[in-house]
Parts: sequence; structure tokens; C-alpha cells
Amino acid sequence: MAKRNILLTPGPTPVPPSVLKVLAEPIFHHRTPRYRDVFKQVSEDLKKVFRTKENVYTFTGSGTLAMEASMVNFLSTGDKVLCLEAGKFGERWAEIAKCYNLEIMTVKVPYGETIRPEQVEEALKQNPNVKAVYGTHCETSTGVLLDIQKISNVVSKTKAIFVVDAISGLAADVLEMDGWNIDIVVGGSQKGLMIPPGLSFVAASQKAWQMNKSAKLPRYYLDLAKCEKSLKDWDTPFTPALTLVLALREALKQILNEGMEPLWARSAKLAKKTRGAIKKLGLELFSKAPSNTLTAVKVPAGIDGEKLVSVMRDEKGVTMAGGQGEMKGKVFRIAHMGFITKSDLETGISVLKETLEEFKKASSQKVSV
Amino acid sequence: MAKRNILLTPGPTPVPPSVLKVLAEPIFHHRTPRYRDVFKQVSEDLKKVFRTKENVYTFTGSGTLAMEASMVNFLSTGDKVLCLEAGKFGERWAEIAKCYNLEIMTVKVPYGETIRPEQVEEALKQNPNVKAVYGTHCETSTGVLLDIQKISNVVSKTKAIFVVDAISGLAADVLEMDGWNIDIVVGGSQKGLMIPPGLSFVAASQKAWQMNKSAKLPRYYLDLAKCEKSLKDWDTPFTPALTLVLALREALKQILNEGMEPLWARSAKLAKKTRGAIKKLGLELFSKAPSNTLTAVKVPAGIDGEKLVSVMRDEKGVTMAGGQGEMKGKVFRIAHMGFITKSDLETGISVLKETLEEFKKASSQKVSV
Repeated sequence: MAKRNILLTPGPTPVPPSVLKVLAEPIFHHRTPRYRDVFKQVSEDLKKVFRTKENVYTFTGSGTLAMEASMVNFLSTGDKVLCLEAGKFGERWAEIAKCYNLEIMTVKVPYGETIRPEQVEEALKQNPNVKAVYGTHCETSTGVLLDIQKISNVVSKTKAIFVVDAISGLAADVLEMDGWNIDIVVGGSQKGLMIPPGLSFVAASQKAWQMNKSAKLPRYYLDLAKCEKSLKDWDTPFTPALTLVLALREALKQILNEGMEPLWARSAKLAKKTRGAIKKLGLELFSKAPSNTLTAVKVPAGIDGEKLVSVMRDEKGVTMAGGQGEMKGKVFRIAHMGFITKSDLETGISVLKETLEEFKKASSQKVSV
Repeated sequence: MAKRNILLTPGPTPVPPSVLKVLAEPIFHHRTPRYRDVFKQVSEDLKKVFRTKENVYTFTGSGTLAMEASMVNFLSTGDKVLCLEAGKFGERWAEIAKCYNLEIMTVKVPYGETIRPEQVEEALKQNPNVKAVYGTHCETSTGVLLDIQKISNVVSKTKAIFVVDAISGLAADVLEMDGWNIDIVVGGSQKGLMIPPGLSFVAASQKAWQMNKSAKLPRYYLDLAKCEKSLKDWDTPFTPALTLVLALREALKQILNEGMEPLWARSAKLAKKTRGAIKKLGLELFSKAPSNTLTAVKVPAGIDGEKLVSVMRDEKGVTMAGGQGEMKGKVFRIAHMGFITKSDLETGISVLKETLEEFKKASSQKVSV
């Protein structure tokens, strides 16, 4: 019997069969009209997902690469930045900033909590010379959603640019780049965009491009001005991961065919159902401001969280994500974005229930021995 | 009738059907024993292709990203570097070095010529404080091969490290990282390794790792020390382009099944046949030190080189590469590496012959009107 294989991780997410099919097509050269047509379509369609009239630049690289691009293209050594830290990915901003000798201020909340816009307002009041605020849309490590609209409302009144890591939340939780006055949105390929990992994206506002003019941090591969120049010919400065770009065209077609509003509504519905099912199992949500991208669940007392995840994956064919860093063994995470279906989630929850019962039974037997 | 589609460009090169098949398999998560097994196999097999006992680090990104990695991990601002320039890709080293405020010395030869080891020896004698020498194995823009063994013999006697861009030449022209005392070899996925673009590689010697300890250039995504730490668990610091890694496992299996010596011999044979056929057509080779990776051919007088390439591609289904930068319209290039077969090359040459005759006929008709 073929083994069940249900992927419920917050990246990579399942790739639709129609997209997989594209990946297996014979390769062709990228400096050709044929590829430029594809890349034009992809670049135009990405704008509709990012909800912006600005260009979206495609990098071959992981999401972290695009995060780094959104620092080095806009700042100079010693510039002051404000990093919003609600989890592992928020903390990554300060890690990158440290490498480039930026002056780092942080607004930090305990894992599981979200950042209040007033905290950002207060920090900016105390540090009027902050050049850029770095935040996270959906914090993948905790399942927390930040109120990007309200935070952007605070930042956009200052000279600072607001940069949002939307790697996991893009095309899952609502995000309006232009409507909310966000200056830079960073995206990744293996989440709501439903293709394998390998591409990442940066879109930048005119306010950000103004800062780019005086930004002195070193960059070559990550130079956005080169990307902008190449994009005029629907090209990239360096050889792109072109099979992934072809796959992305197909995935974007499906996404835009559904439409962003219905897609967001679908994610919201699946997220609500998942949270409901989790509570029904007597489990506790980890996030106090849960996203529609993924649900983080507290590992119940007496259960080995890492083992729970590996048993479900290796013995029952359902892959959820464990906790990262300090949260290892304390949470597990269930994604409900992209191509993940209601049926996938129902199977996942039922396998979770079954496995927890087995764990409890085994532990009570151990006690009674 | 299905259109012929023969790809003879020096990257991307054709991907074998067995490798394409892997790309279409359902995706799974990368932080799992299943992926670690794959990445272990790939990392071990890459050593055999790089001909080194050192670790080979895999980046998600284009070859240029790995070139940048081989600067930022080993140098500090103001360090003196010697860049060997025999074409567009040799020049890229100095372009990257300039971004990072390194002091740049160059050894430069006219396009089509190779760099003599004595030139490197002389430059290093005059600049004993050079920290690193950056060269190119096969210069893809001109089809020139550098005598890496002899140049390495010169550099290895000094304190400088020798860094070789082998992006196009790896698994096509002979290269012995350890045997020739090369400190850093940079590779790419879409050439001799026969998979789509999106991965790049860096292998580093112990001499290079010594320099890494004091290297101050900023790096986050490109930090090789992070790669080394992750590799101990057969992992990467950031989400890898995992479908490409899976494809690479299959491609490496085929490469090592053939063996490096037979593979090099096959490339040499195809290159020799191609050069012979080109001369037989009355055309002139551009390179005075031709590689076995690709053959660069001078566009004959009176022929529009760009049009020649586009007619062959769009009307006859044979894609060769045109000239890059200053060489646009002056050369065209035929690859004979990886999965490119004798039959592909024979068809390519025959289409070239036919197209050149058509061009000449059209031009003589124009004259007679």
C-alpha cells in the first residue's frame, strides 16, 4: 500500500500536481524571448499578490537572502534600525543588522505574544533618527500575526521605512503593501505561493528607493538597482532558477484565478477550523494573536513534542513542524496555507488525536508497571 | 510535428529525463532524516566531482552568489586581491571586489587569449602582500581555458589563497582541487552537473579556513562558518532549494557512475569533434586556448551574429549562445558538456551550416538586386 504523505509544514508546503508537471518539462535558455515572456507574466502577477503597483524583484535564494537584500540596499554602516521581535524570525532581522554594523534598537515581546503598535510608536518617539523598522507579518516560529496595518500607520508618519518579512504570511494572511503604506515586502516561494523553495522576492516603495540612493552597505548579487535595470528587459542580472520561475507562473495563475480575497477567506476558514479542532482535543493554542497561515499548539504536559512530530511523520505519514530554537519540544505547528486542503487538515488532526492517545496509553502503562 | 529543441548553451544545459522526473515528485520537508540522507549523499558525491577531501558547501543561489561567498568569507576591507581577467567572468571578480572596497590588482589579457602562469608569478612578485588570487577555470564568455594547475603551482608557493571560478568548467574540463593545491573552487548547478540553475557550491581548503578566522567582510546568508556548522548534521543554515538537491543526487549518481576520467575524456572528444567541424565549415575558433566545456566561434564577416543565433533558435530549434557584453554579435558559443550528446552536436553543426548558407544566399541576392 502506498504510504500516506500529508505535508502540513509552514514551508515547504505541498506543490499542486499541475505545478510539479511544469518542473519536469525540458529546460530552455533564459536569455530568450520565450523566457522573457514568462518572467514578465510572473513579475506582473506578483504585483497582484503583493498588492502593489511597484516592481517585485525575484532573487534565486532563500527568504533570508531577500531579508538581507532589504537591509543592504537601503542602509549604511552605523544607521539606526528598529527590529520588532516576536519570535525567531523577528530576531533574524537583528542578527543580519549586527553583521552589517548597524545600530540596533528592539521592541521585544515574549514568544506567543504580538507586538502592539503603541510599543513601536513609543520606540520611534524615543529614537527619532531610526532609518528603518523591520517587522514580521506572520511569525512562523510562534504562529503569531503582527498588526502590520496599524504598525505601518505609525511608521509611515516618520522618516523611517517599514520593512515587512511576509515570507510565510504572503498569500495566506491579508497583506496590502500599497494600501497599508508598507515600504518593503519580502516574500518566499515555498509557502502560500505553492512552489518549491529556491526563489525569494523584494518589493520596494518610492520612499525606499529614495533611501537606496545614499545606501552604502556593500552588495553585489543582492544589488536591487541591478535587478531594476534588468527588469526593464524582463530579465534578471544573474541566471535565475528558471524552472522555479516557470512553476511560479503556473502557481500564480491558480492563485489569481481564485483571487486574493477568496484565497484569504479560505485560509481564514481553514485556520478557524484548525483552532477549533485543536481546542476540541483539549490542547492549547500557543499564539495569543493567531495567524491564518499556521497554528502553533502547546505540547501537552508529559508528552515528548519532538517524538510526537516524528511518530506522526515517520509512522503515520503526516508531517507537522516541531518547535524551533528555544521552542523545541514545546510547540508543534500546523500550516493551513497554499495547496493544503480541508481534507489534509482533517486527516492531520485525526492522526494527531490518535497519536496523542497512543502516547497517553503508553505512558499510563509505564506508570502502572 | 513536434518542434526540435536542442540546447547547446553553456548553461543551462539539457537536463536528463531521469533527473526531470525527480523534479516532479511530491515535495517533503527538509528538516527530516529523509532529506538529511539525500543531502549527505550529495555532499559526499560533490567531493568526488570537486576532487577534494574538503567539504563542499551548497548554496541556494546563482553561481555569482558563490563567487561573492568566496570573497566575503576570507577577506577584510582594504585587503589586496589579484584578479585574473580573460573575459567577462574574470572581470566579475574585480566587480565584486570593488563593492567590498578591496584593493584590486589585475592580470588582463585580450579576449580569446589565456593567462600565462608567468604573468601571475610576476604580479605576485611585485605585490607580495596579495591575500587572494581570483581566477577562472573555463572562461565561458570566450571559451578559453586557463592553465589552473600551473597558476596554482605559482600561487600555492605564496601566502595568498587561489580561488577558482569553475562554474562552467566543472565536470567538463579536468580540474583537481586537492591535486593542484587550489584553495577554493566555486561551482554551479546548470552546467556539467546537468540540473537546472538554482544551486551553487563552494569548497575551501584548510589554508582558506585559516584566513576565514580573521576575515571581517560582512556576511549573513553567505556565511560559510554557518554552512560548516549545519553540514555536521547534513543540513543547511537556511531552507535549501530541495527539489534541486534531489535532482542533483540523481545527476551525481550518473556522473560518478560514468567516472570523472571517462567524463573528461568524453567532453574532450566532443570538443575536438566540434572544433574540427567548425574549421571544416571555414569558420574560425575565437579561443587561442580552447576549453573542452564550450567552443567559441568568430562570427564570419558580413553575417549578423545575433540574427544567426536567433534564426537557429526560433526557426530551427537549435539554441547556441551569442556573445556577451563587448563580444555581442562577434562570437557565438556551442557547449559540449553534461548531457549534450554527439548527436545533438551533429544536428547543431548541420543547422549552423544550413543557416550560414541561407544567410550568404540572401546577402548575395541582395547584392545582385
